[in-house]
Amino acid sequence: MSDYPEAPVAEGGLLSRRHLLGGALAAPLMVASARAFGAAPGGPMLPVGRLSDRGTALERIGIGSQPGTKGSGASRTPLEALSGTLTPSRLHFERHHAGVPTIDADTHELKIFGLVDRPMAVSVDQLVRYPLVTRYQFLECSGNSGVMIAPQPAQSSAGGLHGLVSESEWTGVPVRYLLEEAGMGSQARWAIADGADAAHMARSIPIQKLLDDALIALFQNGEPLRPENGYPIRLFLPGWEGNASVKWLRHLKLTDQPGYTKDETSKYTDRDADGRAAMFTFQMGVKSIITSPSLGFDVHEHGVYQVSGLAWSGAGRIRRVDVSADGGRTWAEAQLDSEPKAKSLTRFRLPWRWQGQPVTLVSRAVDETGAVQPTRQAALEGRGVGAFYHFNGMQAWHVDSRGKVSHVYV
Amino acid sequence: MSDYPEAPVAEGGLLSRRHLLGGALAAPLMVASARAFGAAPGGPMLPVGRLSDRGTALERIGIGSQPGTKGSGASRTPLEALSGTLTPSRLHFERHHAGVPTIDADTHELKIFGLVDRPMAVSVDQLVRYPLVTRYQFLECSGNSGVMIAPQPAQSSAGGLHGLVSESEWTGVPVRYLLEEAGMGSQARWAIADGADAAHMARSIPIQKLLDDALIALFQNGEPLRPENGYPIRLFLPGWEGNASVKWLRHLKLTDQPGYTKDETSKYTDRDADGRAAMFTFQMGVKSIITSPSLGFDVHEHGVYQVSGLAWSGAGRIRRVDVSADGGRTWAEAQLDSEPKAKSLTRFRLPWRWQGQPVTLVSRAVDETGAVQPTRQAALEGRGVGAFYHFNGMQAWHVDSRGKVSHVYV
Repeated sequence: MSDYPEAPVAEGGLLSRRHLLGGALAAPLMVASARAFGAAPGGPMLPVGRLSDRGTALERIGIGSQPGTKGSGASRTPLEALSGTLTPSRLHFERHHAGVPTIDADTHELKIFGLVDRPMAVSVDQLVRYPLVTRYQFLECSGNSGVMIAPQPAQSSAGGLHGLVSESEWTGVPVRYLLEEAGMGSQARWAIADGADAAHMARSIPIQKLLDDALIALFQNGEPLRPENGYPIRLFLPGWEGNASVKWLRHLKLTDQPGYTKDETSKYTDRDADGRAAMFTFQMGVKSIITSPSLGFDVHEHGVYQVSGLAWSGAGRIRRVDVSADGGRTWAEAQLDSEPKAKSLTRFRLPWRWQGQPVTLVSRAVDETGAVQPTRQAALEGRGVGAFYHFNGMQAWHVDSRGKVSHVYV
Repeated sequence: MSDYPEAPVAEGGLLSRRHLLGGALAAPLMVASARAFGAAPGGPMLPVGRLSDRGTALERIGIGSQPGTKGSGASRTPLEALSGTLTPSRLHFERHHAGVPTIDADTHELKIFGLVDRPMAVSVDQLVRYPLVTRYQFLECSGNSGVMIAPQPAQSSAGGLHGLVSESEWTGVPVRYLLEEAGMGSQARWAIADGADAAHMARSIPIQKLLDDALIALFQNGEPLRPENGYPIRLFLPGWEGNASVKWLRHLKLTDQPGYTKDETSKYTDRDADGRAAMFTFQMGVKSIITSPSLGFDVHEHGVYQVSGLAWSGAGRIRRVDVSADGGRTWAEAQLDSEPKAKSLTRFRLPWRWQGQPVTLVSRAVDETGAVQPTRQAALEGRGVGAFYHFNGMQAWHVDSRGKVSHVYV
């Protein structure tokens, strides 16, 4: 194997993103391979495709539920085992408050009432007849990465720490069309959205968001929503904390003030350091995580690797991602694998030559508004005790001289 | 229900794409719905998510194999039952020549040899260490829609006619990086790519395409490739006929001329009307199809619907799609559901008021190069007898006065 020809662009072995070669990983081939004739015909075509060996091994991780329940908790996407940006639907994270209800799509209705001129009810099959839009966007639980407020770094995988975020193609009806049809009253400022689950999950949503880019989502990744993602319909609020995208949606009640529902007073409200409650902090911050290398995916041989991960922002597009291999002292700009989309996961990478030197890898995202992902310390400032929602501080992986990866605070 | 307030923009009931309201489909709601308390907790979180009732019903269609085989044929994506643009991986179309081989990703290698300075072999786990790129792009079999050369219109669903096209997020290594590493000889003009299936499927690919945007694909929709899509690696040639994106890829042999493999002489070559063979016609044409309404999805009540479908081009982005409800006499420009991506499916729609009038719906796509989808008649011109590859002529659905949909030629 030839050596990697490029000088480092930052400490710890980071190489220029413009030098795109992985760097002579391949083994020399001395004799052109002869064709191996005689293989038996392979398996049949199937009505529903099957997973590969490596795909079969993929499961949601970190499944946890409240004592005595199996559906009041969360499951996470194994981010470290995926590539690209999309999350296979079967691995989308879950957060339920009373399990996954079984709903008959033939009879389910969305009712819109309150401060409207024409209260209305619309069925699932009628919703499909409205003009739909299609967007690739992320959904992130407000509690994602909350474990990073702990005094010691949790030794969890990338998905274990941050797997309450997933990316899908969402297709649905802009809520704006429905509000226009119902005739929104001039006093309407909020809508109280509630779901058909046993928890009657309900959130108060500012009307402006509903008029801006909110959808009544009907399809996810081309197919009808999955039950655990709100089948047959859910609210989808791009870039906002996941719980506000109420699943199994049945009501939008327009009001002149928030409902102060149990779900936004007992949960999803944070205490500031001065003791005041921070309510209705919907937008998710600018954030990035490194998925490779990461805990559980140690580095086994010296050579060139890609430091790769995901970046996103609830405010819009990712503008750039920087990577450091010395815990944040020196930085180099990463390559983005594809054109960033608004409120969508973006994959970044940067070549990195590892020759046994201990390094501390960390990433930092900047979004199109200029917002910069804060350090962990900065992200903790101003928080009351135990306030863990909306944590978007930088997260670091230490690679020791044997290639073993652990979670460290920097 | 109030009447749709907008004047038609073309014959047959087509309405302006700028008037986005579906049009008062909802029923008036007289009494605000009381909360139905008391529902039992729903189902648990699961390691692998389940499909909805409607999702469970989705299967590949039109599965057909050569006599005596189960894996030498094709299966199709049920396009009429999906929305958005993405194809769930389990429903991606298939076209195999000797079934789906079982390959060990831990030992499989890609070998690059022939007119290169440094013949090389690279494993799957090494390929993952190269810089990857991620793109949403379609894959279309060159035989897709070929049934439209028949003298009478086949009474098949949209997926039955056109379901040899699917859309995925593809992640892989640009082939360019590997060829640079191998040191391409100055005489190299073609690469012969062959797969590890029992058919030894092999195609000759112009080097320029490999240097342009070809990938060694490793991941599809975030997860490792499915076996039926080439696990562990396949060639992926954006916008080109699917068979050239050789699955289960094991060799790239660089040469100064094509290999004239059995797969490009016995198949995937068309006869022109003058009797000459048209070989190496890789790029798929500009095309659109209407998926709703379509055969099997009749219109049941008078009112406003969305005429919706998919458009794509092997040459780049879709620029616009027009829809006609009178068999191509008058046209109106459709709305695109999302920003078109290069060599990617784009969904279009246009509101349409149906009051029992018989109509003939047809769509016409234009791509960024200015290429216009031809009529069926124009697409047939110059073809020899039985020449059915690369058929991109317009396809029409007739809706009769009872709302029944049938395939017609216009």
